[in-house]
Amino acid sequence: MPEIRAIPLEGVGEVRPGVDISELVLQATRKKRQKLQPGDILIITHKVVSKAEGQIIPLSSVKPSPATQRWAKKFKLDARVVQLGLNESRRIVRRRNGITIAETRHGFVCANAGVDASNVDGGQSAVLLPRDPDGSARQIHRRIKSRVGFSVPVILTDSFGRPWREGLTEVAIGVAGMKPLRDYRGQRDAHGYRLRVTVDAIADELACMAGLACGKLSRAPACIIRGYPYQRGRGSGRDLIRPAKRDLFR
Amino acid sequence: MPEIRAIPLEGVGEVRPGVDISELVLQATRKKRQKLQPGDILIITHKVVSKAEGQIIPLSSVKPSPATQRWAKKFKLDARVVQLGLNESRRIVRRRNGITIAETRHGFVCANAGVDASNVDGGQSAVLLPRDPDGSARQIHRRIKSRVGFSVPVILTDSFGRPWREGLTEVAIGVAGMKPLRDYRGQRDAHGYRLRVTVDAIADELACMAGLACGKLSRAPACIIRGYPYQRGRGSGRDLIRPAKRDLFR
Repeated sequence: MPEIRAIPLEGVGEVRPGVDISELVLQATRKKRQKLQPGDILIITHKVVSKAEGQIIPLSSVKPSPATQRWAKKFKLDARVVQLGLNESRRIVRRRNGITIAETRHGFVCANAGVDASNVDGGQSAVLLPRDPDGSARQIHRRIKSRVGFSVPVILTDSFGRPWREGLTEVAIGVAGMKPLRDYRGQRDAHGYRLRVTVDAIADELACMAGLACGKLSRAPACIIRGYPYQRGRGSGRDLIRPAKRDLFR
Repeated sequence: MPEIRAIPLEGVGEVRPGVDISELVLQATRKKRQKLQPGDILIITHKVVSKAEGQIIPLSSVKPSPATQRWAKKFKLDARVVQLGLNESRRIVRRRNGITIAETRHGFVCANAGVDASNVDGGQSAVLLPRDPDGSARQIHRRIKSRVGFSVPVILTDSFGRPWREGLTEVAIGVAGMKPLRDYRGQRDAHGYRLRVTVDAIADELACMAGLACGKLSRAPACIIRGYPYQRGRGSGRDLIRPAKRDLFR
């Protein structure tokens, strides 16, 4: 059983709208210890991808509705950020205590539809989720493959809260080059017993691992995971979204 | 920024009721590459702790109620396993399609109150969660500290499902020797901006990382995480359970 390593990718340059993220990543990996190897997985926080794709909204351009202004005032929130979250939502799941849990257009359920104004542009702008996180991951995956000559799966991440448990954990919102779920059903464990009802959210666990290596306070927006025997395949971040008919919590 | 490693602990002996888990772990770590070092964190799947503590129930001893028998028959489940889950629950959160999401006596919300009959004793027994996962973690932490001479935080894990997302991820149910949550509120990021509303569930992310290294099919019930700059402190698995008054989903 090999060990698994999370190697933060240092030296990724400033991300501005229009830059090619795969190029920034490749430049950073030229440093010796960070060189990409076959078997590596690349985890990237979605925020740099959103920035590169211009998914940044100046808050001065947002006009909150009167209802949003009242709600924001009551809970001491920035009404423009709340309004952006509503704009990005296709369904409100819960709304209480100043917290809006919403389903995004992609189908992700998270706080404020993934709209985040902290840590961006001195609080003058908000970052949205990428329009098509799987498409963004596939593009980065393709470009890196064409340059290094082998497939490096790409996972784009965000930090989501969860019902019943405190604290945020990282999740995968875009996936390319690997299967995000591992299905053990029908397989046998080390003792020869058949495993039942066991599907692991590998891509989310990889996102968590990268979250530990990069951290909120660091400058590393990406991380290499080395040593995890992932399953090749098309895969998609949507595979991790539970279909409505199997969802006990809607 | 250092890299983080997950090193599966191989060679942990057979776990029978009454064995000392800390002793089994220490024996396994005597192998050179697995030697414990200051800064290491020890992640242990709760199943071996439950076994050691005798939290194994022969299914032949369980008498399901008539209602449980009807429900189990309808969904082709083992009524004895369903009954054990109900016995271990203090609140039923959802019950549909043969799935019971319950709050355990500890306060964890998970499928069948954490009762698991797969992968145990050829399906003739079920494993319950440890009675006091924090207490178990503290005992292992204390014993290992007294033997190696430094503190190695201990996290006990289980695999939980989640609303809205497919697949299981590992979570921390017992913690000793470190803070399971990292609170960034009021701190500044690499760009000098103050971070808001950001608390990370570090212990859950460490559990996920260990889950990748150990895997469902392997024989490694424990894992060393090396290189993560954890925060010392008392910490508890209960810190990760959201209090009822802050819970939007009850």
